[in-house]
Amino acid sequence: MSKTKRFILQENEIPKAWYNVIVDMKNKPLPLLHPETKEMLKVEDLEPLFATELAKQELNTTDRWIEIPDEVRDKYKNYRSTPLVRAYDLEKALDTPAHIYFKNESVSPIGSHKLNSALPQAYYCKQQGVTNITTETGAGQWGAALSYAAKVFGLELAVYMVKVSYHQKPYRRSIMETFGAQVIASPSMTTRAGRKILTDTPNYQGSLGTAISEAIELAMQTPNCKYTLGSVLNHVSLHQTIIGLEAEKQMEMAGEYPDIVIGCFGGGSNFSGISFPFLRHKLTEGKEVRLIAAEPASCPKLTRGSFQYDFGDEIGYTPLIPMFTLGHNFAPAHIHAGGLRYHGAGSIVSQLKKDNLIEAVDINQQDIFKAAMLFARTEGIVPAPESSHAIAAAINEALKAKEEGKQKNILFNLSGHGLIDMAAYDQYLSGDIRNYELPDEDIAKNVSVLEKIIK
Amino acid sequence: MSKTKRFILQENEIPKAWYNVIVDMKNKPLPLLHPETKEMLKVEDLEPLFATELAKQELNTTDRWIEIPDEVRDKYKNYRSTPLVRAYDLEKALDTPAHIYFKNESVSPIGSHKLNSALPQAYYCKQQGVTNITTETGAGQWGAALSYAAKVFGLELAVYMVKVSYHQKPYRRSIMETFGAQVIASPSMTTRAGRKILTDTPNYQGSLGTAISEAIELAMQTPNCKYTLGSVLNHVSLHQTIIGLEAEKQMEMAGEYPDIVIGCFGGGSNFSGISFPFLRHKLTEGKEVRLIAAEPASCPKLTRGSFQYDFGDEIGYTPLIPMFTLGHNFAPAHIHAGGLRYHGAGSIVSQLKKDNLIEAVDINQQDIFKAAMLFARTEGIVPAPESSHAIAAAINEALKAKEEGKQKNILFNLSGHGLIDMAAYDQYLSGDIRNYELPDEDIAKNVSVLEKIIK
Repeated sequence: MSKTKRFILQENEIPKAWYNVIVDMKNKPLPLLHPETKEMLKVEDLEPLFATELAKQELNTTDRWIEIPDEVRDKYKNYRSTPLVRAYDLEKALDTPAHIYFKNESVSPIGSHKLNSALPQAYYCKQQGVTNITTETGAGQWGAALSYAAKVFGLELAVYMVKVSYHQKPYRRSIMETFGAQVIASPSMTTRAGRKILTDTPNYQGSLGTAISEAIELAMQTPNCKYTLGSVLNHVSLHQTIIGLEAEKQMEMAGEYPDIVIGCFGGGSNFSGISFPFLRHKLTEGKEVRLIAAEPASCPKLTRGSFQYDFGDEIGYTPLIPMFTLGHNFAPAHIHAGGLRYHGAGSIVSQLKKDNLIEAVDINQQDIFKAAMLFARTEGIVPAPESSHAIAAAINEALKAKEEGKQKNILFNLSGHGLIDMAAYDQYLSGDIRNYELPDEDIAKNVSVLEKIIK
Repeated sequence: MSKTKRFILQENEIPKAWYNVIVDMKNKPLPLLHPETKEMLKVEDLEPLFATELAKQELNTTDRWIEIPDEVRDKYKNYRSTPLVRAYDLEKALDTPAHIYFKNESVSPIGSHKLNSALPQAYYCKQQGVTNITTETGAGQWGAALSYAAKVFGLELAVYMVKVSYHQKPYRRSIMETFGAQVIASPSMTTRAGRKILTDTPNYQGSLGTAISEAIELAMQTPNCKYTLGSVLNHVSLHQTIIGLEAEKQMEMAGEYPDIVIGCFGGGSNFSGISFPFLRHKLTEGKEVRLIAAEPASCPKLTRGSFQYDFGDEIGYTPLIPMFTLGHNFAPAHIHAGGLRYHGAGSIVSQLKKDNLIEAVDINQQDIFKAAMLFARTEGIVPAPESSHAIAAAINEALKAKEEGKQKNILFNLSGHGLIDMAAYDQYLSGDIRNYELPDEDIAKNVSVLEKIIK
């Protein structure tokens, strides 16, 4: 009875700096390249698109710790630290000797970890006098977080929301509008990129890649406007390390160290956030710790993609990124984890995967919901379909530990709750959730064009 | 920058007993009466309907502190303590000298305070070997909480959900089903009570009073089954005092004492929860503290109702309760705060109101959403329409303090978030939220029949 379940830091224990893992990597990620000149990208190249401070963070390979501005820390305090929770009831249901911990980012007022980067991005924009920002959103978690952050720092925001989610998740759109953002279904007729795609494929239901193209284009054409992104890029992963840095202290409070750290994987922001601070121990102290990225079987860039230079968006506005990719024209199946339907992985994670410093697993949709239901019915939290990939991977590891009769400590990131995703649960309860096969030929076809890009 | 925003208790500081305010009341509430004999109710009369321990708690007027069972405390730890938050950004937006604090019950995994009573109710049922339970739910907050609690303690649950909410809030239904509960729209054809109402008023959209009748009837006709209720009754208020008991300690951490404590008001559970522990100081130490119940203008039992014996349900299955009431046949307007659409107030709150130990205010729906929007855009949390009544009352008091140039400490309970209520926000953003007038004659007509009931 007296065992502690939730570990929470005092406000003065919340980390004061983000962790820049690149500094500790032996093999640095390959450089980002300019989309036209194919030259190595410089801060000046990124500045038209991003706030200067964010452009600097993106290319920073020298500062291990980057101070969190006071104004951002002040807003972090609205919901941080998030609890580290020992999932006793899940352990019991699995009858496993493993100790399962999860970092509960779902208690953020927006319901996910996305606020961790939305706040600094909006802050740095505001600080340099920007008045308008644009972004894209898939399931709407990033868009909702940025909408609040934009309101907090007094910025106007336009969000391109992937069309299929715009219609499937009207509540997320309403949340953004409640915070004062303008939301446009993507592809739209408001940009050249959107018009081109709608002309080529009239009923296209959208993808993150397309929405990114539209958001970038609008930012470039609007005075005093910057673009912001919720994942993939280095500065986003940097901000998200607040998750793992807190978890590091909280695991210490629990008196244990994780053998395995797991995050779901879309573009990499929450996986990076939970895992990089533990990776640091592996890189600098040779600590034994497995880091696992859990991705959808229908969008398996890390497990089945190709490591190549590719664009971050559909139309080719972004820098060329060295990434594990399914090809920027990849049209993912309409799985319920809209936040994970992205064709590529960020450059840091891709390099780490190439160097076998992290692992990846892919999981199909039916197993995701099975894991989600078990978690909900034991821990009482209805998880986001995205986060349920991490849950499923954690359950698999816990069952393996049981088979092997080993007590392992497993830590995963619960990136968000699923209270806005109940339509998906309805489908599961009605037996209507299906898996999507992705033939090797489809992947090969998509990535075969990439070599030409940097040729 | 160094000011603390959120005050959180360690697990060992979470209160170990609930507070029974009746013991400290000079004028005790009038007794509950048996619906047929009109005799004072005894534990034996309640036992067919409720778990024995709950029946005892309902009529307990002698024990000031009632120990929280270990098994319940263990589940409380999944989300408690909830944070006490200083709403600096809201204060700034109002430019008020008042210090505004809120107790954030929305971080519960179910999104509201309802779990505080759902867990002990399910526990006590399980403990005495009950296998099935029934209940009613309005907006679905109580039903969702009880669904999880029933799953935790291994009980089968049937929920009668007010029909208008069943259709307007399908996500809440899905949440209950995700936790394994069976949900039936009320009025239904599954009970005599439901059939009678459907025959009298074929297209009746339901009310909490009707749903209670159905849930009671099903419990009485099912072997080894008990009924549970999410508000109104004394034992529910008792369980909810965990809110105020935590807040008491957390206000101490903040180094302040509230001049005003506010809760929204439906049947009384969250208002009682936040206010009774502070009322204790008023009753036992003569402490100056104002306690305000904030109710919808369209369902104003405390501000415009009549203090009389009345039934808790539509059909007359419950004991007769001494209450401020609009009449058990009152059909409330379809406001978005479904959880506050109840005709009567619990017996303790009613007595306190009669003795002027608490105050009540009524607020119309447009003002509710205006307050909700301001709160969302400053504090980042989209509040439930129910909770927004407390926010609106707190804002009114903060503006009064500004007018008077006085620094007041205001504490309100944020009973839940509104992420499942976004359709209501959509309507507000489209200018479609209206107020409902309730003519005096309508109230008079409804309560005029009540005198006959105990004649």
